[in-house]
Amino acid sequence: MRNLKPNRRSNCPISFSLDVIGDSWSLLIVRDIIFTGKKTFGEFLASDEGIARNILTNRLSRLETMGLITKNPHPTDKRKDLYKLTEDGLDFIPVIFELSAWGAKHEPETSEAQAWLADVQIDKESLIQLIKETVKNGGSVFAGPGNVIEQLKKRQQSQ
Amino acid sequence: MRNLKPNRRSNCPISFSLDVIGDSWSLLIVRDIIFTGKKTFGEFLASDEGIARNILTNRLSRLETMGLITKNPHPTDKRKDLYKLTEDGLDFIPVIFELSAWGAKHEPETSEAQAWLADVQIDKESLIQLIKETVKNGGSVFAGPGNVIEQLKKRQQSQ
Repeated sequence: MRNLKPNRRSNCPISFSLDVIGDSWSLLIVRDIIFTGKKTFGEFLASDEGIARNILTNRLSRLETMGLITKNPHPTDKRKDLYKLTEDGLDFIPVIFELSAWGAKHEPETSEAQAWLADVQIDKESLIQLIKETVKNGGSVFAGPGNVIEQLKKRQQSQ
Repeated sequence: MRNLKPNRRSNCPISFSLDVIGDSWSLLIVRDIIFTGKKTFGEFLASDEGIARNILTNRLSRLETMGLITKNPHPTDKRKDLYKLTEDGLDFIPVIFELSAWGAKHEPETSEAQAWLADVQIDKESLIQLIKETVKNGGSVFAGPGNVIEQLKKRQQSQ
């Protein structure tokens, strides 16, 4: 479990959160799990930002030490590990969500993937809760069966 | 104005936001402006985290280049500059707010300064809007005349 005391910069909760999450590479790994349901080293490595192998190894280990992700052996492929967000990690969803909203607002070129948000008939709190439940159960926002977008489309059709 | 194109890691809005804001030192400067109304180099330097002079100089310059803060001469003390959030910078308030909420929830020792949140009879969207308006007009959450806490107390008394 994390023990930041010796390294903590202050008692400010914002500083504490930043010390726990680490840097932007760590946040991008958390993003990969939430938005595209990535679970393995190879999947994280393949993301567009081109994270280096050694940085990825370091950040996965750090996220695990900080209690934000867990690592378990792949059920059928013993060469692989599966990474999953803990409850503490799932609680970072609102932070990632607001980072996404800032980017989509201030750089139109990035907003294509976020266009779905504009069409969504759901308040922000409910959407974040739905994302959290879905990711907790192994799903994601965009990818995989029963993803958040599919769920929202079904809801709208049944209305 | 910012032009990240050559350095952008991907078209993901989350990655874009992280590339604009930079690292945690930059976020802590933005926090200082929002929560305690700091405006000068000396005030940022005095924060609990003990930022080094050269890092502070670099991050202030970076935040200005990225269009998140402006720098103007102090009206009476020509040796000083006054830093202020731009509209783009003010839009980071929800991100900072969620970082604060995560820290307060997961590290009770940091939550003292955040205890006010629990007592506040206001929904999150309205609170963030109130913070944004107050900071835009030169105020802050905790410090200075007409700070957010004072405003909320007045509201509750008049209810």
